[in-house]
Amino acid sequence: MVRNPPSAALVERFASIVGAANALTEPAAIEPYTLEHRGRYGGRTGLVLRPGSVAEVSAILATASETMTAIVPQSGNTGLVGGQVPDDSGSEVVLALDRMRTIRAVDAAGFTLTAEAGVILADIHAAAEAVDRLFPLSLGSEGSCRVGGNVSTNAGGTAVLSYGSMRDLVLGLEVVLADGRVWNGLSGLRKDNTGYDLKQLFIGGEGTLGVVTAATLKLFPRPKGLAVALVGVPSPEAALALFGAARERARQDLTGYELMPRIALDFVFRHIPGTRDPLASLHPWYVLVEVSSGRNQEDADATLEGLLGEGYEAGHVLDAAIARSLAEGHALWRIRHAISEAQKPEGGSIKHDVSVPVADVPAFLAEATAAVLALIPDARPVPFGHLGDGNIHFNISQPVGGDREAFLARWAQVNETVHAIVGRYRGSIAAEHGIGRAKRDLLPGVEGDVAMAMMRGIKAALDPKGVLNPGRVL
Amino acid sequence: MVRNPPSAALVERFASIVGAANALTEPAAIEPYTLEHRGRYGGRTGLVLRPGSVAEVSAILATASETMTAIVPQSGNTGLVGGQVPDDSGSEVVLALDRMRTIRAVDAAGFTLTAEAGVILADIHAAAEAVDRLFPLSLGSEGSCRVGGNVSTNAGGTAVLSYGSMRDLVLGLEVVLADGRVWNGLSGLRKDNTGYDLKQLFIGGEGTLGVVTAATLKLFPRPKGLAVALVGVPSPEAALALFGAARERARQDLTGYELMPRIALDFVFRHIPGTRDPLASLHPWYVLVEVSSGRNQEDADATLEGLLGEGYEAGHVLDAAIARSLAEGHALWRIRHAISEAQKPEGGSIKHDVSVPVADVPAFLAEATAAVLALIPDARPVPFGHLGDGNIHFNISQPVGGDREAFLARWAQVNETVHAIVGRYRGSIAAEHGIGRAKRDLLPGVEGDVAMAMMRGIKAALDPKGVLNPGRVL
Repeated sequence: MVRNPPSAALVERFASIVGAANALTEPAAIEPYTLEHRGRYGGRTGLVLRPGSVAEVSAILATASETMTAIVPQSGNTGLVGGQVPDDSGSEVVLALDRMRTIRAVDAAGFTLTAEAGVILADIHAAAEAVDRLFPLSLGSEGSCRVGGNVSTNAGGTAVLSYGSMRDLVLGLEVVLADGRVWNGLSGLRKDNTGYDLKQLFIGGEGTLGVVTAATLKLFPRPKGLAVALVGVPSPEAALALFGAARERARQDLTGYELMPRIALDFVFRHIPGTRDPLASLHPWYVLVEVSSGRNQEDADATLEGLLGEGYEAGHVLDAAIARSLAEGHALWRIRHAISEAQKPEGGSIKHDVSVPVADVPAFLAEATAAVLALIPDARPVPFGHLGDGNIHFNISQPVGGDREAFLARWAQVNETVHAIVGRYRGSIAAEHGIGRAKRDLLPGVEGDVAMAMMRGIKAALDPKGVLNPGRVL
Repeated sequence: MVRNPPSAALVERFASIVGAANALTEPAAIEPYTLEHRGRYGGRTGLVLRPGSVAEVSAILATASETMTAIVPQSGNTGLVGGQVPDDSGSEVVLALDRMRTIRAVDAAGFTLTAEAGVILADIHAAAEAVDRLFPLSLGSEGSCRVGGNVSTNAGGTAVLSYGSMRDLVLGLEVVLADGRVWNGLSGLRKDNTGYDLKQLFIGGEGTLGVVTAATLKLFPRPKGLAVALVGVPSPEAALALFGAARERARQDLTGYELMPRIALDFVFRHIPGTRDPLASLHPWYVLVEVSSGRNQEDADATLEGLLGEGYEAGHVLDAAIARSLAEGHALWRIRHAISEAQKPEGGSIKHDVSVPVADVPAFLAEATAAVLALIPDARPVPFGHLGDGNIHFNISQPVGGDREAFLARWAQVNETVHAIVGRYRGSIAAEHGIGRAKRDLLPGVEGDVAMAMMRGIKAALDPKGVLNPGRVL
């Protein structure tokens, strides 16, 4: 792999593929592509290429492969593990998919939609809604993340519980391979066992095995009713018991179940304008519950109210605020989605993106919290997330009035402590956001030699020269 | 690859791994492993190995790899494309997983079950039911097919519509690689993005990339109500319209939707003892509809009756028989499941396992039927299957009183005609049963050079010596 910045001649050659206007070389133009929004991962590059077609992506990769130039694919630049931004060498060229934003087809009758890699997730939602369909993937960053990254990171979010993650929502892919060959694997088929299921390699492949240029996605009937409640609960154990009851009652119509500690709500109400506590008294933990109905609003309301009534009787529910309108529902969801944002004014935050078996979430929370407080007694754990998937964003805010840098300096130590507990529960240290650069060094330790050998073998088979996103994942 | 039968010394060496009692060499003992139940695919072998543990599977593959001995993994021997039986060379050793039938764990609270490859699907159903859970995979062969084959062929069946195929039901796998290394990828996690999702390679890999020895599967809440109806409809178009309405109304609770032509029912009532037509008059087409409810029986009934009433108003439903008991529901399902069996006494049958986009099923049926009748005017098409997945078993029974062999001699020609139509709809010629030996020669034509190169690259990375199921898929 070439580890020097591309020569002027090579820059010229790449630029001729996309046209000068789409080959960015000015620092000001390049900057948005080199740093992610939190400023945690970033690097340098002298060249950002913005192809407008699959043919241009193909030509770029053929040239990169020939010249051994490292390519960093990027779509919405919202990734949290440094996979989509260049490193500090200056030798990596950013391949930005943000101009490829055509929705190629919407098939309401067939419940499919085909979108290019640069289409913003919220635009997919809107296109589906325009034909009375639902595309369920729902993330905090849905206003800026793009399909290519959603596919390449196997994005999750709050609707995984019912609809699955991006892997479950992709029917077919169009991918440009490392040497520039184009694989047209777009398909709207619901069932197909024609040889190996190649698309699975690129879903969650983090841009290391090929560049996803388009995807055919599953659409769903739009629910005819949606009931949302913020529920005060005494403990994670109670939240888990209520989850079991909710799943029994609503089955696949349980479309959201998010756990939050009181401190997360304190942060939100303190820092996020327009938010307020809908409940009269304080509770140690909360769940945000969403129930959908294919029938009507009354049906969704009845299911949710039945569940909460049962939960109250059982002592799992202390109090609940039920949204009485779509706007009230949005306001409740806003509390959940604002947590990460609300943590910022509270100082430094050490984060973990972990999962454990669903039934082990309460025990994991207790154990990890105790372990972190043993290390840093005044630290403020703010664990929240997708209880129904066992996926907890185990974030820890710094002590009040403490030194931000001194706290963040303990990131690796805290990670190690929490990840060791995750390991004992046979959990995942990269449940939702992937490996990228952030967890690359941790991968061999959790995956073991056999899995690592398989991953390296697949990488070598699909990208023998190692031009695609080198140093990410593997 | 060695293409001679294993030497006596090598047979002895393999036998020492599993013990003499589990190394079958007598023709009578071997025979059940060399031919599939329809007698369509079969071959010869001098050795069937029946390991009892992962360690024994590992030792067998290490030996096979060292000695370049071809291994054919087999679990329930119910595959329909010849993937699980040896070829005629006598050089292939059958690795039968049928002794590995331990259910290692059932976790009702976590909604998971871990089973070895030799566990029969019906035993998984029973184990789940014993803890008030559902494992939804449902196939005609569920009384004899086994988990290893279900995983390796990405089995489908009648519940895919709501619960997905085997790929959607597998959380983790244990796999022995071609050289004998064991990958422990068993996991009950609902969310995990730790590197490439390696299990996807082995699901639907048809035993060519590794030998699946155990799987952790997803369980679901058992429905509290189940409503089933056999519905007479005027046409596939009406069946499709009713499907759309059913999906809107029942969403994920629409757990079965099977299309059948009248001739299929004629065959069943004529040949399958104990079956009878529950409707008073004849209809050109039928759908079997199943609706589940997480609430109670009344709720499932109400959903189904509402759907049928709406369908009747719209002219999509001509008449319907609603099951009034579990036994009546089983009797309706029996009609559907008996179709393949009922075709046998009607003489030779040329089969296709195809899918097209769901919305194109009616047009495909009309076109393919016309094309087949143009070739063989008295042939009797019996197309049936999973309308909601677009997956039709496009079977054609021979003309009444015609010559069986003469009819079957046209298999390839009929296939070619039907597959060409499937191709125009961008459909799949191997929707559910896989490639095996049956469709290996067709694969390059439908997949194209880029996909074939990727598949061969993956095969070479995981099985460089080509000992695993050679000549199947690739």
